[in-house]
Amino acid sequence: MRIDAVDFFYASMPTVTTAVDGSQDALLVRVRSGDDIGWGECEASPLVSIAAFMTPPSHGACQPVSASVLGRRLDKPEDILAISADVTYRSMDVLQASHTYSGIEMALWDLLGKRRDVPVWSLLGYDRSHGRIPYASILFGDTPDETYDRAREIRSQGFVAAKFGWGPFGHGTPNDDAAHLFAARNGLGNDTALMVDAGQVWRTDVDAVRARWDVLVDVDATWLEEPFTGSAFDAYAAISASTDPSRGPRLAAGESSHNPHMARHLIDYGKVAYIQIDTGRVGGIHPAYEVAQHADHRGVTYVNHTFTSHLALSAALQPYAGLRRHRWCEYPVALSPLAQAVTPDRLERDEDGLVSAPEKPGLGVTVDLDALAPYLHDIQITIDGHPVWTSGQ
Amino acid sequence: MRIDAVDFFYASMPTVTTAVDGSQDALLVRVRSGDDIGWGECEASPLVSIAAFMTPPSHGACQPVSASVLGRRLDKPEDILAISADVTYRSMDVLQASHTYSGIEMALWDLLGKRRDVPVWSLLGYDRSHGRIPYASILFGDTPDETYDRAREIRSQGFVAAKFGWGPFGHGTPNDDAAHLFAARNGLGNDTALMVDAGQVWRTDVDAVRARWDVLVDVDATWLEEPFTGSAFDAYAAISASTDPSRGPRLAAGESSHNPHMARHLIDYGKVAYIQIDTGRVGGIHPAYEVAQHADHRGVTYVNHTFTSHLALSAALQPYAGLRRHRWCEYPVALSPLAQAVTPDRLERDEDGLVSAPEKPGLGVTVDLDALAPYLHDIQITIDGHPVWTSGQ
Repeated sequence: MRIDAVDFFYASMPTVTTAVDGSQDALLVRVRSGDDIGWGECEASPLVSIAAFMTPPSHGACQPVSASVLGRRLDKPEDILAISADVTYRSMDVLQASHTYSGIEMALWDLLGKRRDVPVWSLLGYDRSHGRIPYASILFGDTPDETYDRAREIRSQGFVAAKFGWGPFGHGTPNDDAAHLFAARNGLGNDTALMVDAGQVWRTDVDAVRARWDVLVDVDATWLEEPFTGSAFDAYAAISASTDPSRGPRLAAGESSHNPHMARHLIDYGKVAYIQIDTGRVGGIHPAYEVAQHADHRGVTYVNHTFTSHLALSAALQPYAGLRRHRWCEYPVALSPLAQAVTPDRLERDEDGLVSAPEKPGLGVTVDLDALAPYLHDIQITIDGHPVWTSGQ
Repeated sequence: MRIDAVDFFYASMPTVTTAVDGSQDALLVRVRSGDDIGWGECEASPLVSIAAFMTPPSHGACQPVSASVLGRRLDKPEDILAISADVTYRSMDVLQASHTYSGIEMALWDLLGKRRDVPVWSLLGYDRSHGRIPYASILFGDTPDETYDRAREIRSQGFVAAKFGWGPFGHGTPNDDAAHLFAARNGLGNDTALMVDAGQVWRTDVDAVRARWDVLVDVDATWLEEPFTGSAFDAYAAISASTDPSRGPRLAAGESSHNPHMARHLIDYGKVAYIQIDTGRVGGIHPAYEVAQHADHRGVTYVNHTFTSHLALSAALQPYAGLRRHRWCEYPVALSPLAQAVTPDRLERDEDGLVSAPEKPGLGVTVDLDALAPYLHDIQITIDGHPVWTSGQ
């Protein structure tokens, strides 16, 4: 069977703020092949990602993603890998291509799983889907009091782990940050794991991290995530090498990886202890699977990066579904109404409080276009007066 | 003075083929501030790069490039660095952003140089612009005979160095490649340096390179460029470590770097001997300057990557203009009529056969929009029926 069509759906909240809440818009991808459909989601700028799908070619290594996808055979997992390899090569110079293709690749696996009536993790060769401990992923409050209230709320929802990130953290003094960290710890109580996400705020400044390390140890943070630019391996390695692995946080990073090589480098050169992969950016589910396998061999813990819908969450859980040791799962708890509308299915915690990749075929969730309708946008692109793109075409 | 406007000009040849000839289209950038203008060129997919400039924001770290540029102060070099830092942070999750911003950053330097009546290399702190040995950069022929003819033609033009790349190279057997390599060497004669560009054709396959190494030594290749995917540091290091540095080629790579970190990693982890940077991709002139400084400290040779106009060539020569040791300059010799039309000024070889960054203010070249007119395209983007982009606006 051939890939007949790839459709994009761009949705956004009526107002998009400068808060770093990735659920304020969404780019969904629907792939059709014969009577089957599959869904995926790019964790990426929607308009830019659509442009990378349909742009006129610039030359042989700067072709649109569509050139490697439309009309291709889709009967078995190897077909997906062949398409992925062609995207990498033919769209080498379209920087956005991997963000665009990530959502398509997810949809290809979803479609193939549904066609074969098996979950995606089974297509990857795993024999079961292990439960993960979800950590509630939320933003720091604007004030320590707000951070405290959010921590209390998370605890009241029964989460045993929570990650606070972005917001004012890192933009003030070490004392300002300490106030937020203690507020989070006090709100969570001592029996809840606390992760901290600095959102690359210190770029390459190792001393800025050192100035906050003692407090991170005091609040018993499990990890410090992305203190630096994603590519600043030297800075990551400097902190990893100079801090006590038996006490206080280890480093986590990887969400900005847009190919598996970048994630491997964070492990091999940056010496991070947790590698966090967004399947909506890294090129899709199989590149994320490759990272998970590498992490497993290296004794590093794989964690999903997910801040959008439960479609994205299901895709994020597939790459390491069968690797028991990797216990954590990022679990967004403050999704926008739009992100909640993407799919009526939700990956709820089971009776043990764990979250797993679904047992249902494909990604195991459905997309509700009717519920999404209020958020959808029409995009039209013309070149020299000729329409070259109409959304949902 | 504030940045008043950023305009994009998308030009392409009437027919764009799948040959890897990057001069088949172009994205020029014009920045206006008061009465001054500056020009730059993105080495990137035009439509995708424009989308990254004007896309609606997705969240605080996924903002359009325009959000960090328009209205900003532009009085001194530090202003450019501040804008660059904001693009990196606020457009962190817009993967295409660095390709878009590269052309803008060039234009900012061009404008500032013209405003101060000094060349860009002077703004970077260099006290002179050293001459470089240009190597003619062309594609392999479809057959060894064609490759031979191209080599003869290059030699007849008086070049003392030539780089052959892409085309059929690497897609056949080692013997097929050997035929092209001997054809190139025979056509050039023994007194002309020969570089070879494999265009990432072997992805991560170290054995594929080993199978061709003896012939590369036999034809006395100066370097082998991009045998692997840009991020495959392990593969680069494996070849670097296992081949004789005193005999035969060394490795070259770097053109796909879209930030200075990636180029540093190729040096520090991939152990390449030549680092090749495209100022139209790496984030502009100053990120390229940072790479040149790092290369100089590490004993690695910096080389520009340029396959487009002489505007791009001037921008490419600025970052290492004052670093005498770095002798080579990539010099495109088979530009499309469009790429030739970009600028009436050409950076010709001087009486010693060398090419230098111009002594004139800014980038030292002018852009001829009238000559470009036959190649220009109008782009219109509407969202929900509202025009959000009209080219040249």
